[in-house]
Amino acid sequence: MSDNNQADFDKVRQEIDQVDNKLVELIGKRLELTGEVGRLKAMLNLPLYVPTREAEIISHKRQLAKQNGISEDLIEDVIRRIMRESYSSQTATRNNVTVTVDKKILIVGGAGQLGALFARLFVQSGYNVDVLEKDDWGVAEEKLKAASLVMVAVPIRVTEQVIAMLTNLNPECVLIDITSLKSKPLDAMMKVHQGPVVGLHPMFGPGIKTLAKQTIVVCHGRMEQKYQWLIEQLQSWGAKISLVESQQHDKLMSIIQVFRHFSTVAHGYHLKEENINLDEVLELSSPIYRLELIMVGRLFAQNPELYSDIIFAEKSNIPMIRRFIERFTDLLDLLEAQDDKRFTELFNEVSKWFGEHAELFLQESNLMLAKANDIRK
Amino acid sequence: MSDNNQADFDKVRQEIDQVDNKLVELIGKRLELTGEVGRLKAMLNLPLYVPTREAEIISHKRQLAKQNGISEDLIEDVIRRIMRESYSSQTATRNNVTVTVDKKILIVGGAGQLGALFARLFVQSGYNVDVLEKDDWGVAEEKLKAASLVMVAVPIRVTEQVIAMLTNLNPECVLIDITSLKSKPLDAMMKVHQGPVVGLHPMFGPGIKTLAKQTIVVCHGRMEQKYQWLIEQLQSWGAKISLVESQQHDKLMSIIQVFRHFSTVAHGYHLKEENINLDEVLELSSPIYRLELIMVGRLFAQNPELYSDIIFAEKSNIPMIRRFIERFTDLLDLLEAQDDKRFTELFNEVSKWFGEHAELFLQESNLMLAKANDIRK
Repeated sequence: MSDNNQADFDKVRQEIDQVDNKLVELIGKRLELTGEVGRLKAMLNLPLYVPTREAEIISHKRQLAKQNGISEDLIEDVIRRIMRESYSSQTATRNNVTVTVDKKILIVGGAGQLGALFARLFVQSGYNVDVLEKDDWGVAEEKLKAASLVMVAVPIRVTEQVIAMLTNLNPECVLIDITSLKSKPLDAMMKVHQGPVVGLHPMFGPGIKTLAKQTIVVCHGRMEQKYQWLIEQLQSWGAKISLVESQQHDKLMSIIQVFRHFSTVAHGYHLKEENINLDEVLELSSPIYRLELIMVGRLFAQNPELYSDIIFAEKSNIPMIRRFIERFTDLLDLLEAQDDKRFTELFNEVSKWFGEHAELFLQESNLMLAKANDIRK
Repeated sequence: MSDNNQADFDKVRQEIDQVDNKLVELIGKRLELTGEVGRLKAMLNLPLYVPTREAEIISHKRQLAKQNGISEDLIEDVIRRIMRESYSSQTATRNNVTVTVDKKILIVGGAGQLGALFARLFVQSGYNVDVLEKDDWGVAEEKLKAASLVMVAVPIRVTEQVIAMLTNLNPECVLIDITSLKSKPLDAMMKVHQGPVVGLHPMFGPGIKTLAKQTIVVCHGRMEQKYQWLIEQLQSWGAKISLVESQQHDKLMSIIQVFRHFSTVAHGYHLKEENINLDEVLELSSPIYRLELIMVGRLFAQNPELYSDIIFAEKSNIPMIRRFIERFTDLLDLLEAQDDKRFTELFNEVSKWFGEHAELFLQESNLMLAKANDIRK
């Protein structure tokens, strides 16, 4: 009996192996086909990422999964994962496109990571791209005059200073920056240049492989119709455009960017000073603690100036950060006084404030954690 | 030309559709086969999750992907996602197993979420399972005497009190608890019972679908050989066992659990008091800001007592939390003084302390964020 079971067991494992081989083959086939779609999209001048088409595919395959008694979420996850690969290879094959061959793009600070990413994208799409670095100011004047678009992609601490040097642009030239704060750079651009102006904040790091589904914040400056081609180009690369007023943008960023970075630095500093044993913590960590820990540690693999520049750019954020200390201290005083009743009341007030988002966030993070667990050894 | 391109385009899309149909079919076939493996594993009394087998499959399919010029990471991600589904359905089909039918399991607090999860697992594996709730103490004595294993699964604030009532267990009975702190419950169990004792801390929430790859911390109490069958049972459900000394466990948990929960509550409280507009923040958020925000908000979808019980259980953590305030304030003073030089030095010291973990965390979180982006609409 047991021997038979063992034989059955080996046989089924072989069948699984064959199914997996077919899966690999089929995924390869799909990537070939989407590569072909990418080339045709480029020729037909269609955008890389079409949300409705994606939603349609997912919805059909979920139905099919349901009919076959297979988890719909499983099928959706697999198809989305393959789609991500398609977007990334379609981005790479877009180098034959010549939508607006007449535009000359000049990237000031094009050797920086994000500047280099945009330079690559513009080149792939057939633009004439040039780069200006800080040692190039001797030859700057001619390049600046010839440019149809100047993108300022320099560190935040020198952005306004660099913008102030961009006098004598062609009046038709589109002037943009990609700094993570928007009010001051936008004001500086409006002051130095009388032509079309727009502020961008790409909501992603330079490590992404495709712009598909990535958000770019757009703060309008001047002469919208003259930079419309740029917005369409960003959308054609797959980006999602969010229009927002620059001061509103900076207010939101003070919380989700400045405060968050600051408290993450403080958190890492605390872990170091408490001298906890990282290996032991990781050995014990559940997926959620691991995730929380890697979100702190990841910061410290990066250039400190990326963070200190953002944190130090605006003194006006300091009172808001100080209010956090007060609130944190108030909660700790409740703990000291063992007042769990008041602590729970405050907790419930915050829950109420989050409203239905809290439950949605819980579901979304549980999905993320399940995915994180997939890659555990 | 353009018409031809359009016709080609439609044709290729149809082919993609057919490939997707075959993918769904093939995944269905694989799940059938792994379901069969699950049944055979149960009969052969083999564990659900075998890390070496999983590593072998992944390694073979990565090789195959490479030979076919397909992204190895893509194939690994897809196979791992399908495997997760297999573990979860294999867990569900384990209900015919009768490894240790003679054991009587009594779960004290079995109506709680985590207690109920273990009750279900024990029932599925053919154990005789009974539950004791706080209104059942009238009939408790008989049940307690008959039990081969008593699991204490009550809220942390009453754990020691409940343990103290567990006098008169059978001397052979294994006494365990699943509280998230370990020193005090373990001491209490050692005091009340002279037989085998062990403390467990399941490092997961009650929402998981399978124990595969989930960590359970084990703090040894007494008579290891007499509870060895329990450890094997947990491993057979797929869990990964981490042995640690109870005081060391509690020290690590004070940081990764108590401090983390506390500061997340403070963070949510800060967002509420600053009265930021959540919808606007989400509209602008990059995957990383969104992830940071949902990790805060998810807490507030849950029962406050789950958190306040853990936070209020140990007054000894207060000085450590106060040290965080001091460090946070020191950093803010640097910001106020515009001393970015010292800030950067501290940043670099923390980077050095994280060592190679920082870079690994960055890579791991980038993988997570790419997955998070897959599900964006």
